[in-house]
Amino acid sequence: MSVLDKLDFERPTKNEIDSRIEKLRVRMVEKDIDFAILFQNTDIFYFTGTMQNSVFFISKNGDILFFVEKSIERAKRETYFDIIPVSDNNGIFKIIKQKGFKGRVGLELDVLPSQIFLKLTKELNLSDVVDVSGIIREIRMIKSEYELRQIKKSGEIVDAVFRSAKDLLKEGMTELELASILESVGRKNGHNGAMRMRGFNQEMDNITITQGSSGTVVGYADAPILGQGLCPAVPHGASLKSIERNIPVLIDYGACFNGYITDETRPFVIGKLDSFFELPYNVAFEIIEKISETGKEGVNAKDLYNLSFELVKKANLTEYFMGYGEGKVNFLGHGLGLEINELPVITPKHDIILQEGMVFAVEPKFILPGKGVIGIEVDFIVRKDCLERVSNSSYELSVL
Amino acid sequence: MSVLDKLDFERPTKNEIDSRIEKLRVRMVEKDIDFAILFQNTDIFYFTGTMQNSVFFISKNGDILFFVEKSIERAKRETYFDIIPVSDNNGIFKIIKQKGFKGRVGLELDVLPSQIFLKLTKELNLSDVVDVSGIIREIRMIKSEYELRQIKKSGEIVDAVFRSAKDLLKEGMTELELASILESVGRKNGHNGAMRMRGFNQEMDNITITQGSSGTVVGYADAPILGQGLCPAVPHGASLKSIERNIPVLIDYGACFNGYITDETRPFVIGKLDSFFELPYNVAFEIIEKISETGKEGVNAKDLYNLSFELVKKANLTEYFMGYGEGKVNFLGHGLGLEINELPVITPKHDIILQEGMVFAVEPKFILPGKGVIGIEVDFIVRKDCLERVSNSSYELSVL
Repeated sequence: MSVLDKLDFERPTKNEIDSRIEKLRVRMVEKDIDFAILFQNTDIFYFTGTMQNSVFFISKNGDILFFVEKSIERAKRETYFDIIPVSDNNGIFKIIKQKGFKGRVGLELDVLPSQIFLKLTKELNLSDVVDVSGIIREIRMIKSEYELRQIKKSGEIVDAVFRSAKDLLKEGMTELELASILESVGRKNGHNGAMRMRGFNQEMDNITITQGSSGTVVGYADAPILGQGLCPAVPHGASLKSIERNIPVLIDYGACFNGYITDETRPFVIGKLDSFFELPYNVAFEIIEKISETGKEGVNAKDLYNLSFELVKKANLTEYFMGYGEGKVNFLGHGLGLEINELPVITPKHDIILQEGMVFAVEPKFILPGKGVIGIEVDFIVRKDCLERVSNSSYELSVL
Repeated sequence: MSVLDKLDFERPTKNEIDSRIEKLRVRMVEKDIDFAILFQNTDIFYFTGTMQNSVFFISKNGDILFFVEKSIERAKRETYFDIIPVSDNNGIFKIIKQKGFKGRVGLELDVLPSQIFLKLTKELNLSDVVDVSGIIREIRMIKSEYELRQIKKSGEIVDAVFRSAKDLLKEGMTELELASILESVGRKNGHNGAMRMRGFNQEMDNITITQGSSGTVVGYADAPILGQGLCPAVPHGASLKSIERNIPVLIDYGACFNGYITDETRPFVIGKLDSFFELPYNVAFEIIEKISETGKEGVNAKDLYNLSFELVKKANLTEYFMGYGEGKVNFLGHGLGLEINELPVITPKHDIILQEGMVFAVEPKFILPGKGVIGIEVDFIVRKDCLERVSNSSYELSVL
């Protein structure tokens, strides 16, 4: 018996995979895309159940060619599709050409490297190319009950880490020390060791611990707090700053279970919360409460942003909300799934009507220059009549 | 004082940065590339000293435009170049257009997403595009003394992890348990928390622990042993397999200090090494010894592969060397630097004459189906008259 057989991770059923494929096919027909060729590991995993070195072809008639370079043995074990073994992309292009597929092709233009794009369009003589990543991201936005079970288990890892943090956080230890121990706690609780973020140049820490000045350093990413990191080469995550009394410590932790990512933040303080942080903390807490009560299927995500922003305005904190100065970002939340930057985005810029099965993080955070950071992040599943929490742990400030 | 000022990571001098830029410019002139536009975070870091959200433009005359979207404050602190603040790629394209740069452009076609490529070539009306990533990888292949100091410090983290492994490795614990603790040890010793690998769909664990069956699972990547991971969604790294007596445990650990990566593997055994593994272990050990004695500037890397392969042949182990069946890879070593898959590659396929300042890992490994894995990985710096070890720890089998 292989060790592979001993793992009790639940796999998607054939019905589930078929339904994902059918959604893609229907959207391709709508958009008049004759065929799509997928190269990105996460997209291929979503549609096939395996994440080996492979390329996935689908026509709008439902013809599927699943090319696997390596490992064929492992892919066979994990997918319901027949596999076409290939030794490189040339072999793939040759077969697609022979089959005579013609017309408009959909590619993941947001991530597909130019080299592959140029070779592919030349070899297959493609002139009508469109980006299929938008469609895929929209399909992946609505999670099945199978996926929601994985996300809830991912939430259990988050709970375990925050529980441990209460015992482990001590005055004088560095952010890095605490981060390294909590990462280890997460791994022992089943964290898969990945934290995927779609896009070029994207990097993601499993944990970001910030306090005071380290939280207010503006980062390169589209995130309100990125952490300072240890050096210019890795400018994100925990720093060597020592934990002080009375200043809030933010622990932003991302779990990954069976590929599914959760992402929550809790505020902690040793001693007594400096009064300066009380108002923004209360507003962050109120935003989470308000969104919990208001959100459900049919609600516009923009309205969730706006009602939050009203609370921020009333407290005169708009300048510090979701970043300060060049660090300000224009969203309050983001979707979660196989990647940490899925749809929907909770932003004033777009109307997105919530649908059952969406999963998103809401992260009201305040960056107070010269002082520090305070905020909360909680993940929600959209249900017909409510929002359901992903994790179970309290999001109140932990006073230690 | 910002916490940024407290970190004692050594930064490249202006002279060092200037010399990197000059190498690029000279190679551009040789290849008749009129200008290059770099988008990849690691390439930009190498040429500027900062890894913010930015784009780097250089003409063959040495005109430089360093566009930074975010964080301008942090980039200013970290680079010697003047910064042009921009809010998106459109702003960048507009400025380049206004300056009237024309001719052949070099882009990182191996990693640049098609979407950016298409937009860029359209907006700037570019028709003569070449891949500049080969040139950049060749320049980055030869490390400066500054870089070698960072790599040696990265090697110290490797030593610390292997030292701890001797104390921590116990019968009955899972690979995951041990991996999670050793990751934590590495972080506390200054591991930056990144493990960069150039290319699309590339993922990399800081640590891969394998024993017996978990090591023989063929992985998707171009590596002899990838680890089984916990589930199909993250098919690499440590598994839930429990550590047994008498079967070798391989710990493959990658450190990152100041952005510079090292990558070594040590074999361990609890009890007595099953005699089945003795011959391949001895051959792996002999390969490392032989390469240590033979390698130096002027030697062809292909010859290092071939002399190793002769030892493997003499022992009748070619079938199991560097993978088995579909898992076989065609190299014995790979370059190291800011990424884990740099040049040179130690392979029979290419002639690469070793030059002082190259850094590479040599990893003779044997995959014995139904039995397990054994091997060693050691990093070397090429010097005029010898190879210099990167780490200090013994690479002999640790019998616990």
